[in-house]
Amino acid sequence: MTDQPETGATPPEAGGSYPVSRRNRVRVDKRAVYDRDTVHAILDSGLVAHVGIVEDGRPVVIPMIYARDGETLYLHGARTTRLMRVFREPAPVCVTVTHVDGIVAARSAFHSSMNYRSVVVHGSGTVIEDEEGRTRAMTLLTDHLIPGRWDELRAPFDTELKQTAVVAVEIEAASAKVRAGGPVEDEADYGTQAWGGVIPVVTALGQPLDDGRLVEGVEVPPSIRRLLSGR
Amino acid sequence: MTDQPETGATPPEAGGSYPVSRRNRVRVDKRAVYDRDTVHAILDSGLVAHVGIVEDGRPVVIPMIYARDGETLYLHGARTTRLMRVFREPAPVCVTVTHVDGIVAARSAFHSSMNYRSVVVHGSGTVIEDEEGRTRAMTLLTDHLIPGRWDELRAPFDTELKQTAVVAVEIEAASAKVRAGGPVEDEADYGTQAWGGVIPVVTALGQPLDDGRLVEGVEVPPSIRRLLSGR
Repeated sequence: MTDQPETGATPPEAGGSYPVSRRNRVRVDKRAVYDRDTVHAILDSGLVAHVGIVEDGRPVVIPMIYARDGETLYLHGARTTRLMRVFREPAPVCVTVTHVDGIVAARSAFHSSMNYRSVVVHGSGTVIEDEEGRTRAMTLLTDHLIPGRWDELRAPFDTELKQTAVVAVEIEAASAKVRAGGPVEDEADYGTQAWGGVIPVVTALGQPLDDGRLVEGVEVPPSIRRLLSGR
Repeated sequence: MTDQPETGATPPEAGGSYPVSRRNRVRVDKRAVYDRDTVHAILDSGLVAHVGIVEDGRPVVIPMIYARDGETLYLHGARTTRLMRVFREPAPVCVTVTHVDGIVAARSAFHSSMNYRSVVVHGSGTVIEDEEGRTRAMTLLTDHLIPGRWDELRAPFDTELKQTAVVAVEIEAASAKVRAGGPVEDEADYGTQAWGGVIPVVTALGQPLDDGRLVEGVEVPPSIRRLLSGR
């Protein structure tokens, strides 16, 4: 889970993959994926990104709602937050999205691990100033969590748009790491009385709970019904 | 989800809380928790931490397995990874753990949000060199995911201990943020035909799957049975 890009650039890969460089190269190659479709799929199915910035020379990692549009990620927060102040000028940012799929219970502590799919994006973040861009980003951020929700809601007020800061992150480098399957043991451990396998970790949506303030007759909207039925 | 510590130090809080300083102060106070018990509970129930470091002036965020021991967090990875090289000398690190509890579907895009519990830890990380400390950290890391698992497994080989790098992070500052409950709407939106409420997000463990290589008669061990029954 902790493998890191290596020193030393390698030539970019061709076609539908992110170029592999010092910045995004994954050390354990068997788990590395640079294919854009895989990277996009992991990003698109996450709920929360962990966003890293540098502040006064120190790392800061904050969970944020995000959305993807091609090779751009959008992040948003209140206009007054420190994170948003960092991005008044383009600033380096790392956006990481992780799905945990299982606890790998090996026959030894050393080989115990996690199954997961993660993406690390390196880029540059900038606050979007124009209203059109901000509205588009808000649309994508809303629909990332609940596709189709934006069209069911009233248009945002001008005051709401003004209070919302949106940061666009251009993806400059990206890599995915995927671990799946059972433990990989020392051969001798297979003959022992120890148990080896995987405990699946599942993230699921529950049935929607309204807030008790619905106007009479209002039902769960189509966007949420579709989300729950997986369509 | 995106609120950030503010500029300007305030006096430390008394008793069982982390002192509030410029570094860990949460901007939206109603969601901030500095109480140690809350911070510890969120850390102890997470599966994966997102670990931020600074490398060549850029932020890097990596998902890692972790464990807590008092006011120390342990992280581990292969000895050759770049992340581990960063911590040969004490280096600043940010460790963030997030539980996603729900999608808050408000009657407006602006008030749509997430329910979550997160902790941001600021500290200094150093590789643990002594074998005793490393073994203790491996014990905690193993038992963080599956309490009691360590005692069921064979002792690690010397070669395994040598290959494992463990980083100790002393917690210098920490804060939690918790959002729970339904959407907080503009008063006028309550009278509309829009639906408002929460879609719960649940992270759960599935039934264990063995790897098909068990010695005959080996059953799911007590540690995993207890984990699944919540005891």
